[in-house]
Amino acid sequence: MTSVDRLVPTVLVAGHFEIDTRQEPVIFLRSDSPVARSEGFEAMSQVNAEANGRTMIATLVIVGEELLPVGYAGLSKAARRMLGVAEGDEMRLSHPRPVSSLAHVRSKIYGNPLGADAMLKIVADIVAGRYMDVHLAAFVTACAYDRLARDEIVHLTHAMVAAGERLQWPGERIFDKHSVGGLPGNRTTPIVVPIAAAAGLIMPKTSSRAITSPAGTADTMEVLAPVDLDLATMRRVVESEGACIAWGGSVSLSPADDILIRVERALDVDSEGQLIASVLSKKIAAGSTDVVIDMPVGPTAKVRSQAAADTLTDLFQYASDELDLRLRVVQTDGREPVGRRIGPALEARDVVAVLSGAPDAPQDLKDHATALAGVLLEMAGVAADGQGSREATRLIDDGSAWRKFQAICEAQGGMREIPHAPYHYDVFADKSGIVQAIDNRSIARIAKLAGAPADKAAGVEMSVRIGDRVSSGDVLLTIHAESPGELEYALAFAQAQADVVLLGER
Amino acid sequence: MTSVDRLVPTVLVAGHFEIDTRQEPVIFLRSDSPVARSEGFEAMSQVNAEANGRTMIATLVIVGEELLPVGYAGLSKAARRMLGVAEGDEMRLSHPRPVSSLAHVRSKIYGNPLGADAMLKIVADIVAGRYMDVHLAAFVTACAYDRLARDEIVHLTHAMVAAGERLQWPGERIFDKHSVGGLPGNRTTPIVVPIAAAAGLIMPKTSSRAITSPAGTADTMEVLAPVDLDLATMRRVVESEGACIAWGGSVSLSPADDILIRVERALDVDSEGQLIASVLSKKIAAGSTDVVIDMPVGPTAKVRSQAAADTLTDLFQYASDELDLRLRVVQTDGREPVGRRIGPALEARDVVAVLSGAPDAPQDLKDHATALAGVLLEMAGVAADGQGSREATRLIDDGSAWRKFQAICEAQGGMREIPHAPYHYDVFADKSGIVQAIDNRSIARIAKLAGAPADKAAGVEMSVRIGDRVSSGDVLLTIHAESPGELEYALAFAQAQADVVLLGER
Repeated sequence: MTSVDRLVPTVLVAGHFEIDTRQEPVIFLRSDSPVARSEGFEAMSQVNAEANGRTMIATLVIVGEELLPVGYAGLSKAARRMLGVAEGDEMRLSHPRPVSSLAHVRSKIYGNPLGADAMLKIVADIVAGRYMDVHLAAFVTACAYDRLARDEIVHLTHAMVAAGERLQWPGERIFDKHSVGGLPGNRTTPIVVPIAAAAGLIMPKTSSRAITSPAGTADTMEVLAPVDLDLATMRRVVESEGACIAWGGSVSLSPADDILIRVERALDVDSEGQLIASVLSKKIAAGSTDVVIDMPVGPTAKVRSQAAADTLTDLFQYASDELDLRLRVVQTDGREPVGRRIGPALEARDVVAVLSGAPDAPQDLKDHATALAGVLLEMAGVAADGQGSREATRLIDDGSAWRKFQAICEAQGGMREIPHAPYHYDVFADKSGIVQAIDNRSIARIAKLAGAPADKAAGVEMSVRIGDRVSSGDVLLTIHAESPGELEYALAFAQAQADVVLLGER
Repeated sequence: MTSVDRLVPTVLVAGHFEIDTRQEPVIFLRSDSPVARSEGFEAMSQVNAEANGRTMIATLVIVGEELLPVGYAGLSKAARRMLGVAEGDEMRLSHPRPVSSLAHVRSKIYGNPLGADAMLKIVADIVAGRYMDVHLAAFVTACAYDRLARDEIVHLTHAMVAAGERLQWPGERIFDKHSVGGLPGNRTTPIVVPIAAAAGLIMPKTSSRAITSPAGTADTMEVLAPVDLDLATMRRVVESEGACIAWGGSVSLSPADDILIRVERALDVDSEGQLIASVLSKKIAAGSTDVVIDMPVGPTAKVRSQAAADTLTDLFQYASDELDLRLRVVQTDGREPVGRRIGPALEARDVVAVLSGAPDAPQDLKDHATALAGVLLEMAGVAADGQGSREATRLIDDGSAWRKFQAICEAQGGMREIPHAPYHYDVFADKSGIVQAIDNRSIARIAKLAGAPADKAAGVEMSVRIGDRVSSGDVLLTIHAESPGELEYALAFAQAQADVVLLGER
């Protein structure tokens, strides 16, 4: 085909065409572009782009002549990054060669299991940007629900680790923690990490920012200290304090995961196999050897039933055994938020209250964090079996965890003051009764509409828990916002929802 | 939620933002747009757009400030058309409500069959533009290969018909013809239609332009007469001549089909069920009652084996029975192109040669067309069973079909001269031997690279057929092009392919 390639005309990369399509590489060409006509490109078809010795597959969008000069192509930010091009660079466009790993995806759609080698090729092509959205959706669909066999989960995890960076830490055992999620608040990581480190465990924790939730661990931690650490800084912090709590975005661990999660979210399909591969690949790539998994179970949490939790726990255990990872799953009560506050700064307030032993510290958050930390202490052998959470509680109560947390914050760049939101609105009970249920999803939505996580101080403060008796006119929750518009917007949503806090007779 | 809607800020539709994303509605917003920030829209997420009382779901693309004025949103052509907006119109953007029919898609992914009502809702949402590419891909994947049961195929066909227009014609029985495709040349429709009409059958034929092939029936017919007819013109032609051969693009028959086909092509997955629903929904929507299906079977055709052809034939028969459509499938030899020429004008030359009884008329095309027309004549009862193709041949040989074809062309706006391409290149055999096989896909690709179908006169002329004995230096095929650049490009590809025409010993 080389003789053909020589004939492919080139276009120049336009400089002033800033388009954010997230991970999706998109190339914009004028409708009267000679290359589009000579190659017979259709709008929204896939094209192969080549520049500076690199290639990628992108979606072609055809634009009117007012948007680009003749002979120029516009590139989305993702396309520009993947191809490594700048304004004025020459780029060749051609019809893409078939992506050979798609044959494996088609085979999986057909019902055949995927072997280790097929998974490696699929994930490598995904990370290289060779899959379009429709291909990603087909792969996710073919692997949805329980369609991945146990060994396919192991293969997928291996492949996802292989496609990214892998961290190394000093020390033989590296401890880690992950929450399966779906619960607002539940900010246990900044409590678990200093407990573990105070007990002498190595715990270089990388966390994510919020994607669909009102706060990720990195968003909350950032209220208290810098989290945007490069690898060298993380190493320095871990060497001096045994632990860090950093944003994981600056290291490329399991990049396939970020790509697949976006599609899974758009499809709203659950996939046990992909969930497990996602979690385990990130942990293995982060260099972890001992992991505790927090699995909240409740009707509005991610894991909605005991049966689903048990299946997932078994699969986690099987896959981690195969992958030589020590792992324990802790199933917890996921019926309502953990802690009193939701939103970056509000959760930071809960964290500091628990660590510093403040009188208003939410007991449920403390109990939950010490249960998880206790499992790590038992895995490390620094607490006897069944004594972990008691030991973890002791490390809070004697001030060790709080001192360690402050030291970690200082090592990460200095501890910060927690900001307050200037605008508040109390939502009152319109009748008396006992709190029957709290809708985790609506609480999260209110906090986001109030501005979280971009507005650090925005969010929701809960005044009640399931089982509380309230009288008409009592405060159920308080919305915090940094601007009156956002306050009103969150409030309008809260008022339109019937049962954010469900009151009943008993 | 109305109280929230009142708070949604509006943007104005930009006038100078021409973006062609084919069927996909895309909205472009500035990164510093207040609505994007206040709503927390992410790039490449779905947004609900509302204007002039209409709503649609679109993909949001975030652009730099050089591309749009403050307060304006750019819309792709598809978005503009779906929402019915023009420059300066006010538009509201909000987070989309969940698309409820996606629950049915998820249920299908999970393995449950889809009922009639679920299919109706899915297809209606697809046509309304509520499915993103990832959703379409998930639906296609969940229905791929043999995953649609026979009754699901019937439900899908019903739903696809219901989601578009449906034509009515005078006369009780309306005849139609469809080719499953994959074979270059094979331009039987302009021969079958005048034979049928000459025998008194009503055959208002709507055909497509090429999508991935070097010529569609509409492209070829356009060489000979106008095909871009509105419904009123089609009716007038059919009333006077009993038939027409028009481009179907001006009537919206089974619009879901166009959307699904684009995704199926990108995924390159075959789906028996979707193929059948696609064909039958177009025929039923076109008002047809009696249909002959041409099914070429060959290793480089669409249907590659006898077993696949038999399965497909059974499914076609079951579904058409359930849908009260009379249908007969004719399995034909799909090992090599039918007719001598490939490309709009070149195929038109073959068609005219057959109809006018020219000495160089390709016999295989005549045989194939009379076989198909014969089935229609038998279905109509104007020929006894087994006598159809003989009667069809007689209608060619006595000049009736050729006179009818000319009359149809005149009624459609006047018969045209067939153009010639000025540039030719003969590809010679580099050894002697017998033609073993011809690669349909490579032939089609060469014709497209030479400029077909946009360049009407471009294409490929075959000099050999399977079984022919050739000597080294004999012409195997001739490439026709309208410009020297395209000729060279097609030639480069042809020379790089080893076995476009495979020569062997016996």
